Amino acid sequence: MLFLALDLGGSHATCALVSGSSLVCSRHLPFGSTARFEPVLPEITHTLQELVAQAADPVEGIGVGFCGLVDAANNRVHSTNGKFEDGLTFDFPRWARESFDLPLRLENDARLALRGEMFAGAARGVSDLVMFTLGTGIGGVAAMAGRPLTGIHGQAGVLAGHVPVRAKGRPCTCGGRGCAEAEASGWALPSICREWPGFSSSALAGRELNFKSLFSAAAEGDPIATAIRDHCLEIWGMMAVAAVHAFDPELVLFGGGAMGAADQILPALQTYVDQNAWTPWGKVRVAPAALGSDAALLGVPTLFREDW
Amino acid sequence: MLFLALDLGGSHATCALVSGSSLVCSRHLPFGSTARFEPVLPEITHTLQELVAQAADPVEGIGVGFCGLVDAANNRVHSTNGKFEDGLTFDFPRWARESFDLPLRLENDARLALRGEMFAGAARGVSDLVMFTLGTGIGGVAAMAGRPLTGIHGQAGVLAGHVPVRAKGRPCTCGGRGCAEAEASGWALPSICREWPGFSSSALAGRELNFKSLFSAAAEGDPIATAIRDHCLEIWGMMAVAAVHAFDPELVLFGGGAMGAADQILPALQTYVDQNAWTPWGKVRVAPAALGSDAALLGVPTLFREDW
Repeated sequence: MLFLALDLGGSHATCALVSGSSLVCSRHLPFGSTARFEPVLPEITHTLQELVAQAADPVEGIGVGFCGLVDAANNRVHSTNGKFEDGLTFDFPRWARESFDLPLRLENDARLALRGEMFAGAARGVSDLVMFTLGTGIGGVAAMAGRPLTGIHGQAGVLAGHVPVRAKGRPCTCGGRGCAEAEASGWALPSICREWPGFSSSALAGRELNFKSLFSAAAEGDPIATAIRDHCLEIWGMMAVAAVHAFDPELVLFGGGAMGAADQILPALQTYVDQNAWTPWGKVRVAPAALGSDAALLGVPTLFREDW
Repeated sequence: MLFLALDLGGSHATCALVSGSSLVCSRHLPFGSTARFEPVLPEITHTLQELVAQAADPVEGIGVGFCGLVDAANNRVHSTNGKFEDGLTFDFPRWARESFDLPLRLENDARLALRGEMFAGAARGVSDLVMFTLGTGIGGVAAMAGRPLTGIHGQAGVLAGHVPVRAKGRPCTCGGRGCAEAEASGWALPSICREWPGFSSSALAGRELNFKSLFSAAAEGDPIATAIRDHCLEIWGMMAVAAVHAFDPELVLFGGGAMGAADQILPALQTYVDQNAWTPWGKVRVAPAALGSDAALLGVPTLFREDW
């Protein structure tokens, strides 16, 4: 069974052809920082049509991961926070019918990535887990009893990166304050660094501020970078404990761009969870996600299976 | 249908006879601070036997709410945090059989109270909600799709008071740090007050330190009491937002001893949730629990219904 897969990430789109649990081919389309979806739609449609034309077998449907809150039952976008805002009014099923003559399923991108890890990645055979994606934002999604959690308004279990971890904390893109995402994500990192006491004397001062430069400077022993890194690890640890207490998982996966420094991240988070989560039944396992940026694409086949 | 109900709260037990959604009669047994269950068991057993003897109709079963993590499927206690520690090894079903010749169901006390509010209280007709009990500790429980959340190890949705809200925060009874319970519960309040800058000049300085004296001094305009009250309200607001983001409820109930000051608590929490929770579908309602300390007792009939 072949499916078209589209991952809409705000500043990029990835188009792919998926067969079973593997990618037949994929194309990454970078857009820079656009807040609107329709200007880039012709390029996306064209790319997907080329993939269909290349397909050796008939394509059965198209699955779309969208960077916002999604009403999956009705294939509509519920809310964005500044990314692809016109997705709110866009008729995705009609577009799929008219452009490809295919049925469409829409899902939140983080939840779709969780489906991918459960179907084809690091969470195969695990029924209860939480997955965090440490990137520009922080995705945090939960599955219970073998299925991604949805909730009555479709937003349960997808906002684990928006758990408040600091009173009167930094304003978040979601409208709240002191969310884990506002206190330790890629978009917040430059401000966090510049406001850190002693920043100007740090090796970070002359560099581009992102997780790569942060973990690299910390590994070189820079004390300011080390302190900021440990701050981020603590916030991620709190966020993981909050999710363990909420969803009772066996496994917490971490993925995303920051995981280039997995050797600095995973042992610290395993220790934090061991020391702070109340799990009398045993130990929650902390592990890396396996599929990287392909996770959402590889979750698409599950959108068309009745047993998912 | 008549049921025996037993609410085991650590420093007390309440025994009752329940018919449908009302209490026929109840007896409160205060124990002071005992960490063990078996020394007070004879008094509990005797009281329950008296209730059975009074019953006009046959009693169908006994439901027990226990102040710890419970494996409800096997009627066993999973973990306590210092309250009735010998509950861990106690054979509840055998005790019920030998003492009353009745079947027994064991449940976490907070989750049982949630069942009570759903069956007979403020959450009738609501399928997705969270309930917090602001007392000596902070109980926080969730229901989704009409049923209390359980999870693979039985601890999902019952630890919403143990969400971490402060990095490097106060040590909590659960083993973690900076939990909402450690930062704004009845047991933590005396230390929080005494360590507050300027406490010795506050009207609170000469009083017993509890939520009653705190809210009363705040209502009288004492600035230190007002600041500590606002700190508690903010922690409870963060905890409510964390639960809204996790479980996607329509309703957040607050109960417990602190709710004597509901007029100071509920409007503040409704405002906090309105301003900080990301709920594009609409507004989460914040409301008082209705059943007070009877909630767990009134949840007992649901333990014996197959549709619960």
